[in-house]
Amino acid sequence: MKSHDLTTHITLAHGNGGRLTGELVEDLFVPVLANPLLDTRNDGARVSVSGADIVLTTDGFTVQPLEFPGGDIGSLAVHGTVNDLAVMGATPLYLTLSVLIEEGQDVEQLRRVIASLGRAAAAAGVSVVTGDTKVVRRGEGGGLYLSVTGVGVRDKAFDLGLAHIRPGDAVLVSGPVGDHGVAVLLAREEFGLRGDVVSDSASVLPLTAALAAIPGVRFMRDPTRGGLATVAHEISHGSGHGIHLRQEVIPVREPVQAVCEILGYDPLYLASEGRVVAIVQGEHAAAAVAAWHALPQGEAAAIIGTVTHGPARVVLETSLGGERLLEELEDDPLPRIC
Amino acid sequence: MKSHDLTTHITLAHGNGGRLTGELVEDLFVPVLANPLLDTRNDGARVSVSGADIVLTTDGFTVQPLEFPGGDIGSLAVHGTVNDLAVMGATPLYLTLSVLIEEGQDVEQLRRVIASLGRAAAAAGVSVVTGDTKVVRRGEGGGLYLSVTGVGVRDKAFDLGLAHIRPGDAVLVSGPVGDHGVAVLLAREEFGLRGDVVSDSASVLPLTAALAAIPGVRFMRDPTRGGLATVAHEISHGSGHGIHLRQEVIPVREPVQAVCEILGYDPLYLASEGRVVAIVQGEHAAAAVAAWHALPQGEAAAIIGTVTHGPARVVLETSLGGERLLEELEDDPLPRIC
Repeated sequence: MKSHDLTTHITLAHGNGGRLTGELVEDLFVPVLANPLLDTRNDGARVSVSGADIVLTTDGFTVQPLEFPGGDIGSLAVHGTVNDLAVMGATPLYLTLSVLIEEGQDVEQLRRVIASLGRAAAAAGVSVVTGDTKVVRRGEGGGLYLSVTGVGVRDKAFDLGLAHIRPGDAVLVSGPVGDHGVAVLLAREEFGLRGDVVSDSASVLPLTAALAAIPGVRFMRDPTRGGLATVAHEISHGSGHGIHLRQEVIPVREPVQAVCEILGYDPLYLASEGRVVAIVQGEHAAAAVAAWHALPQGEAAAIIGTVTHGPARVVLETSLGGERLLEELEDDPLPRIC
Repeated sequence: MKSHDLTTHITLAHGNGGRLTGELVEDLFVPVLANPLLDTRNDGARVSVSGADIVLTTDGFTVQPLEFPGGDIGSLAVHGTVNDLAVMGATPLYLTLSVLIEEGQDVEQLRRVIASLGRAAAAAGVSVVTGDTKVVRRGEGGGLYLSVTGVGVRDKAFDLGLAHIRPGDAVLVSGPVGDHGVAVLLAREEFGLRGDVVSDSASVLPLTAALAAIPGVRFMRDPTRGGLATVAHEISHGSGHGIHLRQEVIPVREPVQAVCEILGYDPLYLASEGRVVAIVQGEHAAAAVAAWHALPQGEAAAIIGTVTHGPARVVLETSLGGERLLEELEDDPLPRIC
């Protein structure tokens, strides 16, 4: 039985990317929007237009503060959108940009983040082709929100899907997890902590392109809101198989780990914005990791676990050798992390 | 010289669709996003993907209240997006949906507007194929904001463009203007007025489809934020020609006119959400109006003016027989009207 508040009013936990977000989508959106193309298990959809095989994705960006070590809402919005297309095996081509500005927003800061957005788009090889700007009254916004839609074409080198995943497949991650989440937390200065953690916000296109030549790549996903643990759950639920992760080999930067220990966060639930989780057929996993190691962004890539015969759950083998269930993200939300 | 406040901080007038919105876009967005496909003179862009001729549009919806006579933010978001594609001569196919919800939002109301969105999409023949939901803290949002992107294909029957417009062309409108603006104003109950005005929020696809068979259709636009006057300015600036409008023949419903007189608004600057302004070669204007008259939505369609030899300005011939310049929308913003 859910609490009264959760069923009658929206809570922050409805936006954390975990169980309640999923329930909200399944309850409110799926029944009325139901159509064969609506795919709530991917961060995008494959559609056909005049015979062209197109991939669409859309995301809202609400990160607070608007500027943080390693990035800002502008570059983050480009990376988040480009990355959703990249992990679906698509080449991003075009972006559309919906801008919601709160009355009183500093124009110079707006100029900086839009310029940053433009640089990130150029670096990723995508063009912003159309946009819209709305202003809401003081107190009715959070300074600046961006909604970005990405249009890409499918790369024929990839044949990805949760249904392709088999027990024995390897779980890979392209680099340390949780950097973005901790960088934003520290930038808020709510905790009186200072740190050297920089967001990993970046286009993952080089990482996904590196896997195009590797056989046996079954599925890719970027572990953003809800972190690695949430992606592991999505893969487990979507494929019907278990996921076994080994804590010891999951790359986490030392300062990220330290901040998490002080504040009581688990880095496995914190957002990364420039990483890829991939499921690769066991015999090709080493080649995939080697392809990533050859890239600056993939130096810390690792095989961090395996797909197991059911039940569909996520088990973490701890550094101490024990095992525990990695639960779905419940409360403890970090609003406006991306 | 602009005032200090306007240049350093965003004001509501930056979002009214008038002069300051245009300056904001030209100043902040165009220089850093500049690319051959970015077209700030249309509410969308034409792009090519794998040889397919695609039209993209995106819009943010922030209307307050979320439900109003004749519609709600959900159906409005579908109509606004579908209509942007329709007036570009495109057939809408797919929508993407970015949802920003404020903590505390009533779930039942959210359920109603999303259901309404689903019905409007089905009625317009478009599928919502992917989406994203974010929750922001209480006090950091206005209940609910939607950003919708539309994907369509160009209809070869149309060859539209501001550059095709010639002096002597007729200016047409498909129905009474300002209904949406007044309906939303009254729904806010700020003015203690009650009225029978219902928003005209609707898909204009039947209206644009009716013009596909008419020769000499040069340009279409839906007069939303900033109203008919703002569209007239966009057409004048974009084509380099003058626009001469005759107040006497511009259809305005009596209760809309009455509310405007009480509150001091000009209905020519108020939003419609189910109307089309079209520029049609003079000799074909009567056929175009006749095609609209045959539709329930087009019963009040009228030829309301002509395109004149420069200068590029908008002149209103008043009901009293005088002439005055119809200025660009400056301040007096109506925030969150769409």
